Amino acid sequence: MDIAPGLDWPHLFATRAERMKASEIRELLKLLDQPDVISFAGGIPDPALFPAQAFGAALTSALSGDSKGAALQYSVSEGYRPLRDWLVTRMASLGVPCTADNILITSGSQQALDYLGKLFLTKGDTALVGWPTYLGALQAFNAYEPYYDRLTPLGNRSAADYRETARANGGQVKFAYASADFANPTGETLPAPARERILDLATELDIAVIEDAAYQSLRYEGDEVPPLLALDIARSGSINTTRTIYCGSFSKTLAPGLRVGWVCAAEPVISKLVLMKQAADLHSATLNQMAIHTVASDGFEAQVAKIRETYRGRRDAMLSALRTYMPEGVSWTKPDGGMFIWVTLPEHMDGAALLAESLKAERVAFVPGKAFFADGSGANTLRLSFSCANETMIDEGIKRLGRVIRGGKTPA
Amino acid sequence: MDIAPGLDWPHLFATRAERMKASEIRELLKLLDQPDVISFAGGIPDPALFPAQAFGAALTSALSGDSKGAALQYSVSEGYRPLRDWLVTRMASLGVPCTADNILITSGSQQALDYLGKLFLTKGDTALVGWPTYLGALQAFNAYEPYYDRLTPLGNRSAADYRETARANGGQVKFAYASADFANPTGETLPAPARERILDLATELDIAVIEDAAYQSLRYEGDEVPPLLALDIARSGSINTTRTIYCGSFSKTLAPGLRVGWVCAAEPVISKLVLMKQAADLHSATLNQMAIHTVASDGFEAQVAKIRETYRGRRDAMLSALRTYMPEGVSWTKPDGGMFIWVTLPEHMDGAALLAESLKAERVAFVPGKAFFADGSGANTLRLSFSCANETMIDEGIKRLGRVIRGGKTPA
Repeated sequence: MDIAPGLDWPHLFATRAERMKASEIRELLKLLDQPDVISFAGGIPDPALFPAQAFGAALTSALSGDSKGAALQYSVSEGYRPLRDWLVTRMASLGVPCTADNILITSGSQQALDYLGKLFLTKGDTALVGWPTYLGALQAFNAYEPYYDRLTPLGNRSAADYRETARANGGQVKFAYASADFANPTGETLPAPARERILDLATELDIAVIEDAAYQSLRYEGDEVPPLLALDIARSGSINTTRTIYCGSFSKTLAPGLRVGWVCAAEPVISKLVLMKQAADLHSATLNQMAIHTVASDGFEAQVAKIRETYRGRRDAMLSALRTYMPEGVSWTKPDGGMFIWVTLPEHMDGAALLAESLKAERVAFVPGKAFFADGSGANTLRLSFSCANETMIDEGIKRLGRVIRGGKTPA
Repeated sequence: MDIAPGLDWPHLFATRAERMKASEIRELLKLLDQPDVISFAGGIPDPALFPAQAFGAALTSALSGDSKGAALQYSVSEGYRPLRDWLVTRMASLGVPCTADNILITSGSQQALDYLGKLFLTKGDTALVGWPTYLGALQAFNAYEPYYDRLTPLGNRSAADYRETARANGGQVKFAYASADFANPTGETLPAPARERILDLATELDIAVIEDAAYQSLRYEGDEVPPLLALDIARSGSINTTRTIYCGSFSKTLAPGLRVGWVCAAEPVISKLVLMKQAADLHSATLNQMAIHTVASDGFEAQVAKIRETYRGRRDAMLSALRTYMPEGVSWTKPDGGMFIWVTLPEHMDGAALLAESLKAERVAFVPGKAFFADGSGANTLRLSFSCANETMIDEGIKRLGRVIRGGKTPA
């Protein structure tokens, strides 16, 4: 019998595997799980705010009585019908009239991004993304080997220019990806006119628009801006003639650990995604969809009100601390919601070097901004998350960060 | 403002979308949800056998006390560590010594198949599969646009011939996919010498082997055959030098609705799959992994013993009924486990036509075998599942099926 050596796996892997690399940031963040570090790094909700009791009751109920067999059984790829019906009502409240046929349940909105990359991108095609954009979107799309071009900040480039650039790379522009509300990583919200410009560009290019609405419910001040999908419906007359694909999530409102999100889009897109989901993982966990449905039906608004209240206080504390402790030459966004503040350092500074120094000297963590740029620019930026630290820790952490940025250890 | 027409979506979709088609069978099976139909169609476990009470207790426990925050929070892409540790012990009992670094938790073994297609297949590569094979594997792999070549029944083709055929199609052979135990759809088990021949071929071709072990625990008679992965370790000395990638599932033993499966393989494969999972859906639901861990730790063997007992009786009843009611010229497999019996009709008969007739005349459902063949052959075959009908219904259903096959409605 032959003794096989360790295999030369890379020669067996698909070409796309070359673009699946460990994120330096994620590797770094693994090291931050130390109790004496004040972390503004993780983009995760505060677990103290999860409605654990409501989930316990919902799960117990799903697993007793007539539903218990169904709760543990295979179910349809489209998703649990009562949850899809609930989402129809929810989408209507956001200005998006639709039916259950416009809704697919996914395992978090991350899965929606993966599926949309898979649905649209042939190797060499182009995706338009923000500069910066959500790192996880780049990771999801990378598997389908696209090129990236800059969607935001919106400039004056013509559709012809985008088209020509994509053609020179051997493909075509397939979609524009945008996080419209309280974006990860900047915390910024696209005002309605910017949304209209994105729709104009998408119409000219005849491409899809992927609207990442993961943070949409977390508004702490100001008026809601209609989703891109709602503005698109206003143009085209009905959801089934729109080009916008809305990706929602319960991760930031109810709980991320159950992995339940949704896509709301025109039927031709949903029906293709349903086939894709059937082939890829059959369906999202049945029991989880039932539990999310129960908890959302019983108290989505109350839960959202509770977390808004808490996160608003933390955002205010962080903005206040930044004003107090940041030196000249440092600027930051003032988000109306979400979990993030985006800091721009003086040109010569490097976020990654600052993190190393910050961890060593001051035990404060954040995410260097470079990873959020498809071209690896943005070295002088960083992302701060205010979702998981209380006001006292935020004040102390920003004070320390100010010291590191100043390059000294003297108190502010 | 422009009024956008309904989009020409197909021109925006990736080339792979052309291979995502609705399965005629699945569409047909949607129609079968009628109480007067005796169905041998669905390849699903009997929900009456789910350990619903144990899951209820496990979930309640996970959502109370110290673990409740973690149970609902994001978690690592590799999977819940205690569950991976439990699987290390489980794999050792199957002759596969490994560590937690050799285990990735997936959302069912269907997701593992999707990820492995994604990891290995560049458009135009070749996958070796059974003739017939699991329909869901073809659907998962199709997204990556491969060609298929015939792995089983094992013939006398040389490695050079496989290689040449793949090259002529513009790619290379990347893996052999085999369901070793009580395969879907045939119910057949590969004896150890056949497994060794597959490993020989894979070694000659220098390709990976994907072992689909979804039904592995459901043995009703005879001795266990070592997994391909165990035989591969015996050749190569350690799991980290093997070429076999084992895909396991809790769907057929504990419950499918929680979507928990696993991959066990060499570290270079697992580490790449972890990155892929992080990009594709972050991680499988945290709470579900915790619940599966508790229920498996407390009573995996007892649960498996219970379902084996029930399914063995149903298999016996179906084999007995087939002997009683099937006319000359019809043959079928005698599986040692699993959920399926594979029936071969006389050459001139067509399974799909038979199903239409059977539903109309006798209200009995099954799956025509053609869909399980990558080349659309096998029109005269059909798959019967015995997992969800009791002995009385099995006897009655097979009696009716015998009548339909005979082409008359007179009792046997």
